[in-house]
Amino acid sequence: MNPLIDGLQYANWSEKIFRQMREGGVDAVHVTIAYHETFRETVLNIERWNRWFEQFPDLIFQGRSGDDVTLARETGRTAIFFGSQNPSCIEDDIGLVQVLHTLGLRFMQLTYNNQSLLASGCYEAEDTGLTRMGREVVAEMNRVGMVVDMSHSGERSTLDAIAHSTRPIAITHANPATWHKALRNKSDRVLRALGQSGGMLGFSVYPHHLKGGSACGLQEFCDMIARTADLMGVDHLGIGTDLCQDQPDSIVEWMRVGRWTKRIDYGEGSADAPGFPPMPAWFADNRDFGRIQDGLRRTGMSSSDVAAVMGGNWRRFFGTSFGPAAGTRPDLSRAAE
Amino acid sequence: MNPLIDGLQYANWSEKIFRQMREGGVDAVHVTIAYHETFRETVLNIERWNRWFEQFPDLIFQGRSGDDVTLARETGRTAIFFGSQNPSCIEDDIGLVQVLHTLGLRFMQLTYNNQSLLASGCYEAEDTGLTRMGREVVAEMNRVGMVVDMSHSGERSTLDAIAHSTRPIAITHANPATWHKALRNKSDRVLRALGQSGGMLGFSVYPHHLKGGSACGLQEFCDMIARTADLMGVDHLGIGTDLCQDQPDSIVEWMRVGRWTKRIDYGEGSADAPGFPPMPAWFADNRDFGRIQDGLRRTGMSSSDVAAVMGGNWRRFFGTSFGPAAGTRPDLSRAAE
Repeated sequence: MNPLIDGLQYANWSEKIFRQMREGGVDAVHVTIAYHETFRETVLNIERWNRWFEQFPDLIFQGRSGDDVTLARETGRTAIFFGSQNPSCIEDDIGLVQVLHTLGLRFMQLTYNNQSLLASGCYEAEDTGLTRMGREVVAEMNRVGMVVDMSHSGERSTLDAIAHSTRPIAITHANPATWHKALRNKSDRVLRALGQSGGMLGFSVYPHHLKGGSACGLQEFCDMIARTADLMGVDHLGIGTDLCQDQPDSIVEWMRVGRWTKRIDYGEGSADAPGFPPMPAWFADNRDFGRIQDGLRRTGMSSSDVAAVMGGNWRRFFGTSFGPAAGTRPDLSRAAE
Repeated sequence: MNPLIDGLQYANWSEKIFRQMREGGVDAVHVTIAYHETFRETVLNIERWNRWFEQFPDLIFQGRSGDDVTLARETGRTAIFFGSQNPSCIEDDIGLVQVLHTLGLRFMQLTYNNQSLLASGCYEAEDTGLTRMGREVVAEMNRVGMVVDMSHSGERSTLDAIAHSTRPIAITHANPATWHKALRNKSDRVLRALGQSGGMLGFSVYPHHLKGGSACGLQEFCDMIARTADLMGVDHLGIGTDLCQDQPDSIVEWMRVGRWTKRIDYGEGSADAPGFPPMPAWFADNRDFGRIQDGLRRTGMSSSDVAAVMGGNWRRFFGTSFGPAAGTRPDLSRAAE
C-alpha cells in the first residue's frame, strides 16, 4: 500500500483530468489555486474547486490532513490539497494565514520569482532574505500547519526560510541546479540544508527545469533523482511534476506577468518560445507516473526507496505538516484538521 | 448535565465578558460576527475572533458542531458559534455560503430590517417573500448546514422561508407579537408554522422586544415563555438574549444604518432615545441566566421543560443543523464538520 502523490500540478481541470488521475492511481495532488490572485480572487478559485468536489465526488475530494491520503486510497479517489504559488492571497494581512488554512490551504510559496512582502524571488538581482513580515508569516504558518514552499524563491531567502522555520519546509517543484542550470533549480547548498532540516524536494518534469528541456530522457531524469538521493537522503525526495495540462498559453503569461508589469516578461521562456513548452514524451498526464517508477527501479534503487520517492515521503510529510504545531491548544487542532 | 445556550449575543467582546460566560455556566453562544459587512470585512471579524480564541483558550473556542457544546461542558469553556445578521457577507455570490460555512458560519439571517437580495426585512412596506436568489441560497444553506435565521425578516418572507427550507429554520432572537406588538416580534401564525416545521424560537431580552421595555418584569417575561410553549410546543423554544453588552451607541447606529442611508434611521429607537436601551434589571450579563431559569420554574413548568428551554433544545437543534444535509457525500461532511 504505497501511496502515489504528486507534489504540484496546475492543470486546466476537467472531468477528463480527474479520471486520468484515477487511471494513473494518483492518491493525492497538491494543486495550485492561486498565482497572483488577491484574497477574494483566491476564494473565488476555492469556490470553483468546491463545485468540482460537489460534481465529481466519486473522483476527488478536498484533502486536509495526511490521513486523507489514506482515505483517498481506501475509497478509490484522489485527495486534492490546495496551495498558492505566491503570498498575494494573504495580501498584507497575517490573519489570512489561519483563514486560508481553515479553507484548506496547505502550502504557500513566500515568493513567485519576484520580491514579495515576505522574501525575494529567484529572478531578482538582490535577495533580501526573509523580510520583517516574512519572519512573522513563517511563524504563523508554522503555528497553524501551512507548509512554506520556496520553489520560486532566491537562494538566500530559501536558506533563511529553512533556518527560520521551526517546521520542515518544502521545495515542491524544482530540480538540482548542478544537473540543469536554471534560476528555478536549486544549488547543492540549498538541497543539503533542505534535507538536513527534514524538508522535502519534489522533482519537476516541467521542461524548463530539465536538462535538455522537452528532449530530456526518462532515464536521465531518474538517474538525476538517484544522485540527489545520495546528496540529500532518499527520505526527503518526492515528485512535483508541475504538470500544467491543457492550459492555454494565456495562462503561462498570467503566471509570469500577473499584474506586476504592463510589458511581457518571458520568464523561463523567450520571445521565440513564449508559450508552455511541450512536455517530455514520457510524461504527458497523470497516467504516466508508472514510467517514472519503472525508471527509478532501473537506476538500481531499492523498491522501498522507489516507493518512498513516488509518494511515501510526501505521505509522511503531509502527516506531520498540516496540523497545528505541537503544543498548540487542542481546540485549534480540531478546527484546523 | 443540561447545557446552557444563548441563541444570540453581540457584545463588545473582552476577557471580562468571556469570564462572565464561565461564571454564568454558559456552554455555548451564537455570536453575531457581521451586520452590514462585506465578505472581506466579515473575514476581518473572523480574524479578530481567531485572535481571541488564541488568546483565551481556557475560556472559549470556536464551535462547529453540536458535539462542541458537549466538549465545552466537559472542558469548562464556552463554545462560540458564528452567525451573520444579514446576507451582506455573501455579497451576490452563492459560493460564499459554503466558504463561510467552512470558516464556521452556522447562522445567517436572510434580511436585516430592509430588503436584501434574498428576502424582505420587517421594516419594509412591501414584502416580496423569498426572491429568486433567496430560494437558491436557502437550498445551498440547507445543503451545507447553515441555519436560516429570520429574526429581522418580514412576515411573508418568514413564512416563505419556513415553507421553502428543507431543514428547520430559526428565529434566534424575538418574542411573540401578541405579547408585545413590535415589528421585530412574530405573529402567532409565524410561530405556529415555525414550531410545526421543527424550527426554533429564541426569546429576546432586548428591551425593545419586551412588554414595557426596560421595565418589563422577570416573571412577566417567563410567563410569556410558558404561554408560548402552549402555542408552539416547548421543544421549539430557547433563549436568544440579544445581549449587546458594553457596546457604545455608535454600534447601534451601525446596526440600524449600515451604509444603506446617509441619514439617521432610529430603528426601534427614536430621536429622543437613539442609543441602546438600558437592559432590564434582572438581566445585565452572562451571569444572570440563573434568574431566567428560576423564573421559568416559578411558572410551573417541569424541570425537564425548563432545562429544554435553557439549552437542551438548542443543543438538539445544533446537533442536527450544522452538518451537511442527509444524503450529501461523506467528503463534504468531513470538510464541513
